Amino acid sequence: MFIGDMNKKRKNAMARVWQAIEEHGGQTILSTGITGDDARLAKAAVDGGAKLLEPNHPALALARGYKGVTSMHDAENLRHEIDIADIAKATQGVRNVVGSEPFITVGVPGGFTELVPVELSDNEIKLLATHGADGMHTHKSNFTDLEEIVELAHKYGLTVDAYIGHPDDLHTFGIPAETPEEVAEVAKRMESIGVDMIGLMTGMSYEGVAAGEIPQIIKERLHALVSSVQVPTLAEGGINLENSKAFKNTGVQILVVGTSIDNVVQDAAKNVIKQFLEV
Amino acid sequence: MFIGDMNKKRKNAMARVWQAIEEHGGQTILSTGITGDDARLAKAAVDGGAKLLEPNHPALALARGYKGVTSMHDAENLRHEIDIADIAKATQGVRNVVGSEPFITVGVPGGFTELVPVELSDNEIKLLATHGADGMHTHKSNFTDLEEIVELAHKYGLTVDAYIGHPDDLHTFGIPAETPEEVAEVAKRMESIGVDMIGLMTGMSYEGVAAGEIPQIIKERLHALVSSVQVPTLAEGGINLENSKAFKNTGVQILVVGTSIDNVVQDAAKNVIKQFLEV
Repeated sequence: MFIGDMNKKRKNAMARVWQAIEEHGGQTILSTGITGDDARLAKAAVDGGAKLLEPNHPALALARGYKGVTSMHDAENLRHEIDIADIAKATQGVRNVVGSEPFITVGVPGGFTELVPVELSDNEIKLLATHGADGMHTHKSNFTDLEEIVELAHKYGLTVDAYIGHPDDLHTFGIPAETPEEVAEVAKRMESIGVDMIGLMTGMSYEGVAAGEIPQIIKERLHALVSSVQVPTLAEGGINLENSKAFKNTGVQILVVGTSIDNVVQDAAKNVIKQFLEV
Repeated sequence: MFIGDMNKKRKNAMARVWQAIEEHGGQTILSTGITGDDARLAKAAVDGGAKLLEPNHPALALARGYKGVTSMHDAENLRHEIDIADIAKATQGVRNVVGSEPFITVGVPGGFTELVPVELSDNEIKLLATHGADGMHTHKSNFTDLEEIVELAHKYGLTVDAYIGHPDDLHTFGIPAETPEEVAEVAKRMESIGVDMIGLMTGMSYEGVAAGEIPQIIKERLHALVSSVQVPTLAEGGINLENSKAFKNTGVQILVVGTSIDNVVQDAAKNVIKQFLEV
């Protein structure tokens, strides 16, 4: 009794994504990390112009000091233990303060490449959809699992953004594609199964690159991605204020930015405390 | 079976407060707001030198976008609806990442001047004491209520920091004292009933003061406070980087800083988003 309604919900969400891309001249950002789950900073991000937000479970592990984790890499190891009800509540809180316009895609246990059997039930997806989420930010690494997610998400009106990785990635955040040709193939297949936005993992979180630069191979892989699909495209992994400029002419429409924002915000907090103590 | 243990717990906490005051040359800060409940920013504050932290319920209302509140004044109106279990969890998360040294005092529903009958049970105080809290940050406005809190808090090994206000305060955050003489009297009586730290509400959150200055009357009230008690003293309300310098020679040992830190951190988030979108 809500199939039509949910298709409409999803179309409305995608319209807001396209509008954000257009408003920002063809390339916008998906603001995550500390701006994805803390309502005070989600509001600040939106005040700064962000139109797309992403609360997710590893960031929530950091926010809540879960088991004492203080780095994203450590958080990734126990992210699946984060309660989806807490993620839904955080999402609702962000939605409460940013209003209905910003697009919110949410990362949850079961939606990433898992190391233990983490299931996602209908009720859990429904919980996200009724707590302000527009979409699911996923990092599945094979089509069987991804198709299941797409079906569940679409049933409850949620979009799916899914990612393409590389077989040599140290940490798996997407379906592997070795060459630019394979990137294009995987992207097309993702689009054909209904993925609403397709991203490329840059791998730059783990590999050093000259300041302000992105590797030529990433540019080639991005070109393969953007030229092979009609849905919005994303780039994720190690994007910061220096190298983000290098994405300008790649055609990719959304840069996922998290850790880089966290660093700036944490430094600001640290420095203001120092200043108070210097008085 | 734990009275002696809990007295020891409380003494240990106060020793850490005195140590912080000493390390910072006689005046330190109690870092609250966004650095009180978000583990990422509590860690940043401690990395910046903060030794005293304060998670509290109105800040948590803002953190979680509770009912869409985005200003501290709005948060004060519904702070009593925040679940103490959520505050305990946030406190535990902060403790997990900052370790055992920082002193953590916690604001909870029932501990402030309430507009509806909010009770604090033994189990709730115990919850705080078992989730990393060293103390209770209170804002009771009469001695009857404050004495009850002190008894409960001490039973579970928690210190109490309590505050002195002014009868004309727009918002009540302490026991009213009109003149400096009355400030001294109230402070002495607070000390005699076992309050572990005594603060003065400056009223500066609500009244405009020239940049970098604090009113002469606040200096006189602070002098009355610091010269009449042996316990550590605090000043709270509208303290920022500009006017904090004016507290230097007042003898007050702890400046409570929240909104001013939030503003800096939120501006940092807003500005970094703007920079990404300018690329």
